[in-house]
Amino acid sequence: MITLTTDFGTKDAYVSAMKGVMFGIAPEARLVDITHGISPQDVMEAAFVLQSAVPHFPDGTVHLVVVDPGVGSERRAIALRHANQWFVGPDNGVFSLLLNQEPPDAIVELDNPAFWRTDTPSATFHGRDIFAPAAAHLEAGASLHEIGTPVDSLSSLRWALPMVVQHTIEGWVVHIDRFGNCITNIEPGTVTEAFPDLDSEPLHAPTPPAPVPLKCYVGSTILDAIHPTYASVAEGDPVVLFGSSGFLEVAVNGGHAAQLLNIRKSDAVKLLPPSLDTNTPNVAHHAA
Amino acid sequence: MITLTTDFGTKDAYVSAMKGVMFGIAPEARLVDITHGISPQDVMEAAFVLQSAVPHFPDGTVHLVVVDPGVGSERRAIALRHANQWFVGPDNGVFSLLLNQEPPDAIVELDNPAFWRTDTPSATFHGRDIFAPAAAHLEAGASLHEIGTPVDSLSSLRWALPMVVQHTIEGWVVHIDRFGNCITNIEPGTVTEAFPDLDSEPLHAPTPPAPVPLKCYVGSTILDAIHPTYASVAEGDPVVLFGSSGFLEVAVNGGHAAQLLNIRKSDAVKLLPPSLDTNTPNVAHHAA
Amino acid sequence: MITLTTDFGTKDAYVSAMKGVMFGIAPEARLVDITHGISPQDVMEAAFVLQSAVPHFPDGTVHLVVVDPGVGSERRAIALRHANQWFVGPDNGVFSLLLNQEPPDAIVELDNPAFWRTDTPSATFHGRDIFAPAAAHLEAGASLHEIGTPVDSLSSLRWALPMVVQHTIEGWVVHIDRFGNCITNIEPGTVTEAFPDLDSEPLHAPTPPAPVPLKCYVGSTILDAIHPTYASVAEGDPVVLFGSSGFLEVAVNGGHAAQLLNIRKSDAVKLLPPSLDTNTPNVAHHAA
Repeated sequence: MITLTTDFGTKDAYVSAMKGVMFGIAPEARLVDITHGISPQDVMEAAFVLQSAVPHFPDGTVHLVVVDPGVGSERRAIALRHANQWFVGPDNGVFSLLLNQEPPDAIVELDNPAFWRTDTPSATFHGRDIFAPAAAHLEAGASLHEIGTPVDSLSSLRWALPMVVQHTIEGWVVHIDRFGNCITNIEPGTVTEAFPDLDSEPLHAPTPPAPVPLKCYVGSTILDAIHPTYASVAEGDPVVLFGSSGFLEVAVNGGHAAQLLNIRKSDAVKLLPPSLDTNTPNVAHHAA
Repeated sequence: MITLTTDFGTKDAYVSAMKGVMFGIAPEARLVDITHGISPQDVMEAAFVLQSAVPHFPDGTVHLVVVDPGVGSERRAIALRHANQWFVGPDNGVFSLLLNQEPPDAIVELDNPAFWRTDTPSATFHGRDIFAPAAAHLEAGASLHEIGTPVDSLSSLRWALPMVVQHTIEGWVVHIDRFGNCITNIEPGTVTEAFPDLDSEPLHAPTPPAPVPLKCYVGSTILDAIHPTYASVAEGDPVVLFGSSGFLEVAVNGGHAAQLLNIRKSDAVKLLPPSLDTNTPNVAHHAA
Repeated sequence: MITLTTDFGTKDAYVSAMKGVMFGIAPEARLVDITHGISPQDVMEAAFVLQSAVPHFPDGTVHLVVVDPGVGSERRAIALRHANQWFVGPDNGVFSLLLNQEPPDAIVELDNPAFWRTDTPSATFHGRDIFAPAAAHLEAGASLHEIGTPVDSLSSLRWALPMVVQHTIEGWVVHIDRFGNCITNIEPGTVTEAFPDLDSEPLHAPTPPAPVPLKCYVGSTILDAIHPTYASVAEGDPVVLFGSSGFLEVAVNGGHAAQLLNIRKSDAVKLLPPSLDTNTPNVAHHAA
C-alpha cells in the first residue's frame, strides 16, 4: 500500500501523473490518498497531518509525501524506514513530527537514476520523476539500499514545545481543521507535569468521566475546564478538550471555533490552575 | 467493498485515519469515497447524497457514514442491513431517506468493545474508533449480531412531503448541486396524483419526448413547462425538469441556477396546471 | 484500470453513482480519479488536464471522461482507442489535445442499448447510464465494436497555436494551476524554430544547466530569461520556465503568480530575442 500526501490539490493532473507512473512500476499497488489539500508549500501542515494519519496504517505501508517548495534546489530527495513503514519525499523536515525526535532505522538519498522515471528528470516535478517511482519500487520489493545511498541525518523542522512559566502553560494553535477546531501543541503529559497537584486522571482516560478544572485562555475567551467532548457543553458554546489526535483543542459545539472565537493559527493558548488569581493572568505571565 | 460518506473534508487526517484502521482489519477491502464534502454536521444533506448513491452499489456493499454532530453524547452507534447492503454510522436519522420508511432487515447497537479499535475510544472520533472498525469487520465477514446488540428502531429525520393544496403542488429545494441545479422533493408520482387530467406520460418515460405543460413558480421565476433535459432550452435559459435522481429540479442550461435565479435551499417550488389563472397563484394558495 | 475525469465535483452523489454502476459490471476494476474538479462544463480545461495525465498511465487503461455540457442534445456518445488506451465520453472535442491531431485507431458511437445501464437512459446523466457502463464493459473485455457502431471522425476543439510574428512569439495562458503557475501554449519547439540563432540547447535538456536569454512579456511584467526551475530565482521573484508538462509557464518562486502578477487565463505571453529593442515590443508587434 502506498499513501499520498501532497499540496497539489485535485484540480490539476499532477496527482494522477504520479499515480500513473506508480501503476506502471507496481501494477498491484493500492494507492490511498491521505490528502492533496495541504496549503501550498506548507511543510509544517503536511508534517502535522502525517503525524495524525501515519500511525493508523499497517506495517509495510509506503508513504509518499510531496510538499516540496525547494524542488530544483539543492535539497535532497530521500527515503527512510521508521517503525516498519517507509517514507519517500524531500528532505525538508516534513517527516520531523512523525519521527518525534527518534532517528529512523535507515535513510537514503534518492541518487540512483536507474530508479527514476527518466535519467533527465523535470526540474520542477520530482514528485512524478523521482519520488513516485521510488515509492513504487519500494512497494514492488526494492530495498532502500538499491534505490539510494545511505545518509546519516535529516533536515529537521523546529516545532517548539509549549512553555511552562509561573504555573502557566503557554502553547499555541498549530492546526485548524475543517470544522474550525483549533488544535494546539499541548499534550496531557505537559499538563500533569506542570500541575502536579491536579487530579489529572480524567485527562489520561480516553473517555474522561469529568471535566478537569483548569482555566484556558485563548484570544479573548476564557474557559473554566477541560471537558471530555464537544457535547459536554450546550450547542453553540465554546469548549476545550483533548481531541482525537491527543492534543488540546479549542472548539465550539456545533460551530466553527476559529471563526466564532476569532482564533488563527499560531495564536497563544494558556492553561492556568483554577487556584491562580485568574483576574491577572497576563501579569503573572509577564513577570516570568 | 466499503464506501465512505463524511463531513470530514479532505484536508485533515480524519479520513485517512479511518482508512488506515480499516485496512488493518480488512486488508483486502476496496474503499470507495462517496463524499467527504457534506457540509459540517448536515445530517440531512448526507441523507440526501446517500439516497442518490447507494442504489447504484452492488449487493454486499458496506456503507460507512460519519456525519455525527452528536459524537460523545448519548446518541447510539449502529449498524443495519437493508436491501442486501450494510450501513454503519450514528443513529441520528442519516439513513432515513434511503430506507424510505421501510424497516431495515436488522439493526444493532455497536456496543461490543471487542470490535472497537480500542476499548477506550476517543470521545470525539467514533468514526475512527467505533464506526470504521465495525464497517471493516462486516466487510471481513463478521455478522451484525457479533458486533452489536439488536435494537428495534431507528431515529428518523423528518423530511416533509410536498403538499397538494387547491390544485397546487408546493415542495421545496432540498439540495443544490455543484452545477447550481436546485433539486426539490417533488417526484413524478406527486404530479400525476395532483393533476389526474394531465397527460403525464412524458414524466414517466426516462427520456420524455415532449414538454409537460405545467406552470412552475420558484423565487421570482415562472416557467411554463417541465422539459426533458437542460438542452431543451437555449443556453442561459432556465429550465425545470425531472433530473437523474428522480426529483424535479430547477436549472439553467449552461449556467448556475441557484446564483442566476437567486434560489436557496428550502425555497418553495410550486407547480400549477396550465389551466389555472396563473396571475394569482398566491391567492389560490392562501385561500387553502 | 479505469480513470475518471469529470466536472462533477466531489460533494454530490454523481461520481459515486458512476462508480457503483462500474463495480456492478466490472467488480475487479481499479478506479483512479484524475480529477472531478474541472470547472463546470469547461471542455477545454478537461482536454488540457487529460493531455497532461494520460501519457503516464499504462497500456490498456480506460479513461472515462464526463464533461458534457451538451448532454441530452444531439452530440454523440463515443468511445475510441488511441495509443493502446481506451477513451469514453461525449464527442465534444474533449479528446482533441491528447490526440494531438493524430486519428485514433478506432472510434465508435455508443448506440447499443445492451451496453447501457438501462435502455431508457436519463436525459441529463449519460455519465451514469451510458458512459460509465461503456467504460466498465471495455475494462471487462468487451470490444469497441460490440458496444458501438464505427464512426469516421470526431468533433475537434480549436486550440490555436502560438503565432510567430516579427521575431516575436505570441502565445497565451491556457491553464492556471493550484499554485498559481500560469501555463501557456508555447512549447520548446516553437522557440527554437522562431529563434534559430539562439543557443537553445538548455530548453531541450530536461534539467537545463543555464538560463536561456529571452525576453518574456506577460501582463505588465517583463522577464529576462527562461530559467530551469522555480528555485532559480529568489523567493518571491517571478520566473518563466518550461514546466513539467512541457509548456512555458510563468511562476513566482514560493508564490501565486496569477494573483501576484495579475494574470488570467487567455492573457497573452510574448517571447522576444534579447537582441530586439525591448523598449518597444508593442510597436514591433503592432507593425506586424
